[in-house]
Amino acid sequence: MSLHLTVLGCHSATPRVNAYPTAQYLEINNRHFLIDCGEGTQRQMRKYKVGFSKINHIFISHLHGDHFFGLVGLIATFGILNREKELHIYGPKGIKEATTIQLKVSKSWTKYPIIFHELESKESQLIFEDDKVSVKTIPLNHRIYTNGFLFTEKPKLRKLHIENIQQYDEIETCDFHNIKAGKDFTLSTGEIVSNEELTIDPPKPLSFAFCSDTEYKPDIVPIIKNVDLLYHEATFLKDREDLCDKTKHSTAEQAAYIANQANANKLIIGHYSSRYKNINDFKVEAQTVFKNTELAEAGKRYSTNSFPVEILN
Amino acid sequence: MSLHLTVLGCHSATPRVNAYPTAQYLEINNRHFLIDCGEGTQRQMRKYKVGFSKINHIFISHLHGDHFFGLVGLIATFGILNREKELHIYGPKGIKEATTIQLKVSKSWTKYPIIFHELESKESQLIFEDDKVSVKTIPLNHRIYTNGFLFTEKPKLRKLHIENIQQYDEIETCDFHNIKAGKDFTLSTGEIVSNEELTIDPPKPLSFAFCSDTEYKPDIVPIIKNVDLLYHEATFLKDREDLCDKTKHSTAEQAAYIANQANANKLIIGHYSSRYKNINDFKVEAQTVFKNTELAEAGKRYSTNSFPVEILN
Repeated sequence: MSLHLTVLGCHSATPRVNAYPTAQYLEINNRHFLIDCGEGTQRQMRKYKVGFSKINHIFISHLHGDHFFGLVGLIATFGILNREKELHIYGPKGIKEATTIQLKVSKSWTKYPIIFHELESKESQLIFEDDKVSVKTIPLNHRIYTNGFLFTEKPKLRKLHIENIQQYDEIETCDFHNIKAGKDFTLSTGEIVSNEELTIDPPKPLSFAFCSDTEYKPDIVPIIKNVDLLYHEATFLKDREDLCDKTKHSTAEQAAYIANQANANKLIIGHYSSRYKNINDFKVEAQTVFKNTELAEAGKRYSTNSFPVEILN
Repeated sequence: MSLHLTVLGCHSATPRVNAYPTAQYLEINNRHFLIDCGEGTQRQMRKYKVGFSKINHIFISHLHGDHFFGLVGLIATFGILNREKELHIYGPKGIKEATTIQLKVSKSWTKYPIIFHELESKESQLIFEDDKVSVKTIPLNHRIYTNGFLFTEKPKLRKLHIENIQQYDEIETCDFHNIKAGKDFTLSTGEIVSNEELTIDPPKPLSFAFCSDTEYKPDIVPIIKNVDLLYHEATFLKDREDLCDKTKHSTAEQAAYIANQANANKLIIGHYSSRYKNINDFKVEAQTVFKNTELAEAGKRYSTNSFPVEILN
């Protein structure tokens, strides 16, 4: 079980010299995802040593330029690097046409397959699942159709309680699979040893929720309840909450309210408006509501404080 | 008369941490042009203090990503900055569709007018002209339809030879306009004073030729003959001339041959392949053929050595 989030860009609107738009690299349970892809993302990936070949799935929240204009360049670069593996792209309807027209005019058709998963639903839906991780959409309210994404580890097998198991000579290594799967063990006497005696709880599956861009939307709380790591946009401070209504963004305080209601372990805020010179003000405001808040910062790798210690067996 | 070229990016293929793809900012005779617009160009414009509001004309040589994928982001940023002025974009057919589909899906229609001038001709043609500057295409040979651009100052009026003029009491200030325009002056005696006696040659109109990307193509020489400043791509060294045939690029030596044949005043080379670690090797190779060669480098502002001194009157 592992969850690490590397922020590649965390500013809103236009790229500036040291302020890159939204992009994040998520490592969760040995899966590697790119989330949003503003202009300059591939440059940031190189800077922060994100292996291009590890990325097989890209999730795009919405089609505003600061979340999406770096995508076609990354796709073309994958081609130049002789990629052969499939690339899956999840994003709003329209993403396929907008991307492929550029590849067409630049005569840069990739030799590797690109599979677009275009999203239209306004309900949360499962959009990715394998044996390690599942990904659900988090419908958000922005000026344009937008989804957040909830990444959740698949539950692991139960852990063997070796000390207790050793008290039963009859239990062989070949029985471990069933015991890990939660089954009781029946001794030759007919006595049943409960699975609870033979195992301990596995680490809790970790989860990460990405919520950008959106106005304050408390009805996402049930979807992200008890999330370990929550990224929520905080474009403004509450002194300019009026701009949130107009632009469909959130304040730092509102992001913290969401973290609080969701019982998140840790909150990361970002997507700062360029009108603010002192980014730390966002943290101060959020922490009045939710203490365990950190500021998104390009190149920083985030974990959650409360990872259960994994017992190796 | 003035000509200054600021290189914003000068590397080929994919953006890297400190290697931005092609983009140049040209100041010529008080006109301001952007030439090519690879991903990250707007970031480089900010870094090197290129005023966004000065750009009214953007010239795109071809639609490969490293010359074009930064365009839509720049257009969107102009919108965010509340631009109202027209923006003219010159580039290969297809540029309009590829750009507008992205603005459409991102619901980022600009409030300012964008006028696309789509190019298809394989002959050199005049594509821009005002009272200060003219711009002609330079048809190049690349894997995709590509033009270079020749920017030339409009000829200035002749300069008054004040000392000689003062010898004729009859010549008044109101006559200066005709004399500057090249007319002789007729004295009240009927005697004709030749314009040659009353004026001196104005500064030679300066010119800049941008030639990227292209294989070695000597038939562009007549178009760029006697150019003051020549930018010519040099993707490879001559040790890998075989790659030029395959990829339709030039070596540093070939770029220098073009400069030599064109009798250019100064050559700037760039678009270096990432396979070369020591960029200075390009300069060494080019200088064996054409001494006055400089390396393109992001953030550097180039002039030509032999500007005629302008005589103010």
